Amino acid sequence: MADARELIRAKRDGHAHGPGDVEDFINRYTRGEVPDYQVSAWLMAAFLRGLNEDETRELTRALLASGRRFDWGPLRRASVDKHSTGGVGDKISLVLAPLVATSAVLVPMVSGRGLGHTGGTLDKLEAIPGFKTALAPEAMRAQLNRIGVFMVGQGPDLAPADGRLYALRDVTATVEFEPFIVSSIVSKKIAEGAGSVVYDVKCGDGAFMREPARARGLAARLVAATRALGARASALVTDMNQPLGRAVGNALEVRESIDVLRGGGPADVRELTLALATRMFLLAGADATEAAARDRAEGALRTGWAWQRFLELVEAQGGDARSLDRPEPALPRAPHVEPVRAARSGTVAAVRAFQMGEIVVHLGGGRLRKEDAIDPAVGLVVHRRIGDAVAEGDVLAVVHQAKPDPAVVERVRECFVLANSAVTPPALVHDRVD
Amino acid sequence: MADARELIRAKRDGHAHGPGDVEDFINRYTRGEVPDYQVSAWLMAAFLRGLNEDETRELTRALLASGRRFDWGPLRRASVDKHSTGGVGDKISLVLAPLVATSAVLVPMVSGRGLGHTGGTLDKLEAIPGFKTALAPEAMRAQLNRIGVFMVGQGPDLAPADGRLYALRDVTATVEFEPFIVSSIVSKKIAEGAGSVVYDVKCGDGAFMREPARARGLAARLVAATRALGARASALVTDMNQPLGRAVGNALEVRESIDVLRGGGPADVRELTLALATRMFLLAGADATEAAARDRAEGALRTGWAWQRFLELVEAQGGDARSLDRPEPALPRAPHVEPVRAARSGTVAAVRAFQMGEIVVHLGGGRLRKEDAIDPAVGLVVHRRIGDAVAEGDVLAVVHQAKPDPAVVERVRECFVLANSAVTPPALVHDRVD
Repeated sequence: MADARELIRAKRDGHAHGPGDVEDFINRYTRGEVPDYQVSAWLMAAFLRGLNEDETRELTRALLASGRRFDWGPLRRASVDKHSTGGVGDKISLVLAPLVATSAVLVPMVSGRGLGHTGGTLDKLEAIPGFKTALAPEAMRAQLNRIGVFMVGQGPDLAPADGRLYALRDVTATVEFEPFIVSSIVSKKIAEGAGSVVYDVKCGDGAFMREPARARGLAARLVAATRALGARASALVTDMNQPLGRAVGNALEVRESIDVLRGGGPADVRELTLALATRMFLLAGADATEAAARDRAEGALRTGWAWQRFLELVEAQGGDARSLDRPEPALPRAPHVEPVRAARSGTVAAVRAFQMGEIVVHLGGGRLRKEDAIDPAVGLVVHRRIGDAVAEGDVLAVVHQAKPDPAVVERVRECFVLANSAVTPPALVHDRVD
Repeated sequence: MADARELIRAKRDGHAHGPGDVEDFINRYTRGEVPDYQVSAWLMAAFLRGLNEDETRELTRALLASGRRFDWGPLRRASVDKHSTGGVGDKISLVLAPLVATSAVLVPMVSGRGLGHTGGTLDKLEAIPGFKTALAPEAMRAQLNRIGVFMVGQGPDLAPADGRLYALRDVTATVEFEPFIVSSIVSKKIAEGAGSVVYDVKCGDGAFMREPARARGLAARLVAATRALGARASALVTDMNQPLGRAVGNALEVRESIDVLRGGGPADVRELTLALATRMFLLAGADATEAAARDRAEGALRTGWAWQRFLELVEAQGGDARSLDRPEPALPRAPHVEPVRAARSGTVAAVRAFQMGEIVVHLGGGRLRKEDAIDPAVGLVVHRRIGDAVAEGDVLAVVHQAKPDPAVVERVRECFVLANSAVTPPALVHDRVD
């Protein structure tokens, strides 16, 4: 057990910590034996000097050990979860969780809220009238046993040290550091008791990682750290150079998810859902081959089983499933809907996903501060994607606002970069880490 | 006014802070508006990324602004102080302060205690029975006006933010960083109201800086930072590859200082005192030429004026001057005095000053922890210096102990490295920064 000051000094000087040192340091922090000011000095030293895989694994283990760790083993079924690093229009979880739960595989999904310009699964689910994202552990177990899926928030007993450490990182400018990001994500995934985890690492203008090489590196680290703690893992690096699907905004994304669950919806949302479901079925051992897993995923959408499982999920967590099960689901609607038209003709060369995410936050669909309330109805529907031809006056997108604001229409128009020559759309899946 | 987090982020990313940012940050820390955990993250970022001269000056100014700043201007005489970066056997201040005060120049000297293996002027003064190192501001002013010199400790109202920041640096492994060291020293020197400061930057085995280039860099920074705050400054880089003089230990060093004040004592202590006094007289404007300043310094020793001023100083601060003014001054004596003899003949190639400092701390002459009491009587008297010839059985040093411990004698013997060929002694003064 190294003295806290000696530990800080070692990292300051660029040395790797000895076995057990990081785990011990964070455990002592959790117990209140090491003060914030020593941890924050260490955070900065680690940020600037780096942490190796062993150190990252120990950090993860210590965060995990600070709270409850669910064990779904007594349910005697494989379990799998998916985690996305965050994007714009990423509503995949809403389709994917019930879809995978149509098999014998359990999906104990713990999700987050919107962060910065990206949306969060919890905020989307709460756009469904009555839907509750907090469940007691016993209710989680019972629901998982009955319908094979729950979708909840983190809760105070899951890796509480991660919450404290994140708050400290936030005020000491040590958030954007891969080993910290990895340990934070993985500790929570392991704590929720998933036996397998598929990571969707977003890459591009609308993601936290913009360069493919860095996204691939993060994917590899997430997979390695998860395996080191005894769970199976794989990752896809997927495109976030334009919003995923057409809808950006909470209720709008729920509506689009329902379209996909009913067998329709935008091709990219459907395709990414199937790609991730395939990985999840394979990882959880539901299928032996990729073709079989893919068949199972497609079948779940085609037969309507995924849609039925979604309605059961909504019902189980207090939402009004009947109001959703209509040709036009009953969801919040914004009073002002305005098209954004192209000022000239051309081909869409870029759709600024980051800026679109910021616009939706600005409309009230996300939070500027943690305590802000969200307007579930507002958002954008994107009508043109990279590579699409556009004529002057065509509708590029539609803005859903609480109050009409012409400046927003102009800002949305600026998100579309038009070229005069043909543009090849980006691939949806850039890379895979198994 | 930058947000604390943005300031930390900027330094983390290696950017220089904008004008006013560092000063504002530390001022807010002093007022309790920025918490320790943000300051410690910034300390580490600054440690690893560096602070430029402007940033260091702002830090110094903020430390200074946190407390009282003495102004001796109303006394209508120039003032000058000397600061040593710390060494082994460095009793120069005890001779130098009263010596310089024999001129019209004031010496408002604020000193420190022993730190690590080095001794402190306050601990040495307190070996004189009755001597008090704490004076009220009004008593300081009156004494300065009457005898031209006081020698005191820092007191709680002088740069209090430096004390708080030092405590934070101490527990976050951010002590050994030049801009922090410079700002800490200079803020206190400016706060004590000295119009000129001469720095004695120690260099070698027994100093905190071992390489001459780094010592010279520190000297240049100290001088620049002091000038930037409106005081005159110069610096000597002096040798600390063996103890200064013969005595190491509080009462032993007082006795040796008295020898020098009376016109005798070891040549190196006398010579360094004269060299520093010369710089101080020149800087304070007491003399126009180096020769005149040197003459004045030599005269103060030769005539006994420095000795008389020392006795007045002791008297003024509660010490028993009469007991010192005897052929053999009455000072604490250790009960066990044991010679350390050479095991073989040769020439002294090195005297391990650092190890000697550590031995004296171990004997009880310094502190392992802040709250430890000091035994003023213990220490070493060094009889052989680098370049001296030694015959087997010669006395290399004498140990003064509270309890006899043969292991100490052995450890002291190991401090003397003997060679078989001639060795050139190091120069006393390596460099000068004006």
